[in-house]
Amino acid sequence: MVRVIGIDPGLANTGWGIIETDGIRFKYINHGTITTTTELPSNLRLKDLYNKLSEVIKEYKPSNAGIETLYFAKNVSSALPVAQARGVQLLALGNMGIKTGEYTPIQIKQAVVGNGRATKKQVQDMVKLLLKLKTVPKPDHAADALAAAICHVHSVRGNV
Amino acid sequence: MVRVIGIDPGLANTGWGIIETDGIRFKYINHGTITTTTELPSNLRLKDLYNKLSEVIKEYKPSNAGIETLYFAKNVSSALPVAQARGVQLLALGNMGIKTGEYTPIQIKQAVVGNGRATKKQVQDMVKLLLKLKTVPKPDHAADALAAAICHVHSVRGNV
Repeated sequence: MVRVIGIDPGLANTGWGIIETDGIRFKYINHGTITTTTELPSNLRLKDLYNKLSEVIKEYKPSNAGIETLYFAKNVSSALPVAQARGVQLLALGNMGIKTGEYTPIQIKQAVVGNGRATKKQVQDMVKLLLKLKTVPKPDHAADALAAAICHVHSVRGNV
Repeated sequence: MVRVIGIDPGLANTGWGIIETDGIRFKYINHGTITTTTELPSNLRLKDLYNKLSEVIKEYKPSNAGIETLYFAKNVSSALPVAQARGVQLLALGNMGIKTGEYTPIQIKQAVVGNGRATKKQVQDMVKLLLKLKTVPKPDHAADALAAAICHVHSVRGNV
């Protein structure tokens, strides 16, 4: 069994989800959200984010990661702080030697639902089904993170 | 005397410059460029960047930093990788306990030249003059980094 962390990157709210897989079936382990506060200056806020993600990685010891890419159609000024946060998250994965795949929202929808233009609800329902959960994981960020983990397994199938 | 590192953030090329100041006069210490290669996957490339910047910080032991903010009028897709790199640089400064100021290009031009719409050449000439250099520092990224360091001193004057 291979353990995979999925990450839906953010600065204020980062979703994470942990699954295990034999390459065919999935086993749900846990999910959650990392939050950081605007009260910290940006360098200390990024440090807080790095440390909190590192704690999750140390606790669950995934060997693989799937992290969503950012997509911003318009507002570049709101994109930059989130991209800075995502850089710190990629660094945490790199520093811990985790094999990391990066996936666009379309790739994740395609992998989870079989349709790159699936709705958010369709993705969440498939995450629930594939991971044999009783309810849709909450909040949405964590469900998206679990979807990214599933996408990574599809992407590297036979090679996790 | 307080030692300040200036950073012109990038992914492929990051300029850095080190100055000392008593709050009034400046003393040039050194400048350079950190480069990373596209041959590495993004998480390992960010790790390489983090390590290289950390080495510069360990060697010169600045207590303060001035880092330029990113400005992208148009191309958000090229902005995101640079923002990820800048996040990693802010983290390095945060992890090393360096008092960090972030400055827009306009703020830096205003501080160095006295005109927020100064040309690149005007900034470089003032950097050369203020730091008593015989030639303009090269490459441009490093001159911009020294300008960011000077801007930080102006910004926190009396409180470095």
